[in-house]
Amino acid sequence: MQELRLAVRVYLEDTDAQGVVYNASYFRFMERARTEWLQARGVDHNDLRERFGLIVVLTSIEANFQAPARLGDVLDVKAEVVSTTGARLVFAQSVRRTGGDDSPMDDALLCVTGTAVCACIDAVSGKPRRWPKDFLQELTQ
Amino acid sequence: MQELRLAVRVYLEDTDAQGVVYNASYFRFMERARTEWLQARGVDHNDLRERFGLIVVLTSIEANFQAPARLGDVLDVKAEVVSTTGARLVFAQSVRRTGGDDSPMDDALLCVTGTAVCACIDAVSGKPRRWPKDFLQELTQ
Amino acid sequence: MQELRLAVRVYLEDTDAQGVVYNASYFRFMERARTEWLQARGVDHNDLRERFGLIVVLTSIEANFQAPARLGDVLDVKAEVVSTTGARLVFAQSVRRTGGDDSPMDDALLCVTGTAVCACIDAVSGKPRRWPKDFLQELTQ
Amino acid sequence: MQELRLAVRVYLEDTDAQGVVYNASYFRFMERARTEWLQARGVDHNDLRERFGLIVVLTSIEANFQAPARLGDVLDVKAEVVSTTGARLVFAQSVRRTGGDDSPMDDALLCVTGTAVCACIDAVSGKPRRWPKDFLQELTQ
Repeated sequence: MQELRLAVRVYLEDTDAQGVVYNASYFRFMERARTEWLQARGVDHNDLRERFGLIVVLTSIEANFQAPARLGDVLDVKAEVVSTTGARLVFAQSVRRTGGDDSPMDDALLCVTGTAVCACIDAVSGKPRRWPKDFLQELTQ
Repeated sequence: MQELRLAVRVYLEDTDAQGVVYNASYFRFMERARTEWLQARGVDHNDLRERFGLIVVLTSIEANFQAPARLGDVLDVKAEVVSTTGARLVFAQSVRRTGGDDSPMDDALLCVTGTAVCACIDAVSGKPRRWPKDFLQELTQ
Repeated sequence: MQELRLAVRVYLEDTDAQGVVYNASYFRFMERARTEWLQARGVDHNDLRERFGLIVVLTSIEANFQAPARLGDVLDVKAEVVSTTGARLVFAQSVRRTGGDDSPMDDALLCVTGTAVCACIDAVSGKPRRWPKDFLQELTQ
Repeated sequence: MQELRLAVRVYLEDTDAQGVVYNASYFRFMERARTEWLQARGVDHNDLRERFGLIVVLTSIEANFQAPARLGDVLDVKAEVVSTTGARLVFAQSVRRTGGDDSPMDDALLCVTGTAVCACIDAVSGKPRRWPKDFLQELTQ
């Protein structure tokens, strides 16, 4: 279950008047990484709905803010599936501040850690549904 | 065709690292006022889609930024229909900074002026549709 | 330590292509309620910075998504301080879907519950700072 | 004066309950492209403020929405400086929907066209300032 790492530039839209990245922006960044994780496995939200009648929803998330990111920073946003059940995917997530395009990721400063739990629901009824079996296998290989 | 005026508090989410309201936030504020304008006429986006199979979309908008608004400001956001045709509603819009809940609106500082052109499209085909006749009359009384 | 309850209308900006409120929007709503909680005690972010050299930051937050809210809903967003220490304010938060302006709050459907931990930091150094003593008393009376 | 083209993936955060990209999202995309245009010339918002005491602000923008973009689309967002004066940079902008990473840009569907006028202001006084001469030359070579 490989991790997905996404580089995200911090733009004005992501910051607030305290001069740092606004808290809800990190949840947008973490969702981008989860979507890219799916995408990297050949699945996107449109496919899921059209081929399987499924929607992936977030059922819970928690985040710890350890250091602020700032305008112009290049962030390394990670999504890694750490457990699956018939209905749930649990992602460990993090956001690190890198020194820019050239700096080694290893020196990156940890800004945020988080855990996101996603579930599969029926696109019409909204009821929980198991992930299609083959699909879950495919996802977590 | 009465105007709609909506009071909007500026929160952290609306600001950016330049210490002022971020430009795209004003477009969110102006859209809120247009939606409330419809709502004040007994119409909402859900009704339109379910009863008429219609969606209201923005076809063009322009805005002039004259003075910045800041965190904590209470803004007076205006939407006024200035012309209608079979397919379009044209809104004159403005955002003013008031001195807070108690200050007279007349003293408000003009932050943004804008013009938004909305059209009616078919919810399924996405093709332009005329506003339902009675509905347009109702809207613009 | 009275709770703060804020009515929030769901606009297009808050929703996503799954037809419901986007997850990060709830974090914006919860932050609005925390800001209004402070404001109701005569404190705003600008005062804090200018009079005390302090910034309130979010250090952690967790949220459970129980039922979706939708376009046009009027939400009842709650912030209640459940504990304080020298450096931290812990808020219990919730978002409920009401039937609109006229319906009783008691019938409201629970959409989201959350816990937000805020801390005080120095506006210049970014180091943690104790809340000013009188101020914390004032806040939590 | 070369143009800057930025590839932007449409995530859930960018869409709304009408199933398309929300209008204010396009203004965020266009701002990203303007920022990258500056960045490509070795200038970023932080440099400008720290080295020159300058802030770049948007003074007006207009946009025409021609076709909707949707969840999962890869957009080609363009920023090109079409005129400069002592105080202003005028950008022609566009957003096109490409068929994904592999499709030729030439086949891209035009979604939005826009014109953005930016100005230089003093970071402290907020008053208009001329762009530093060498800097403008450098920018527009």
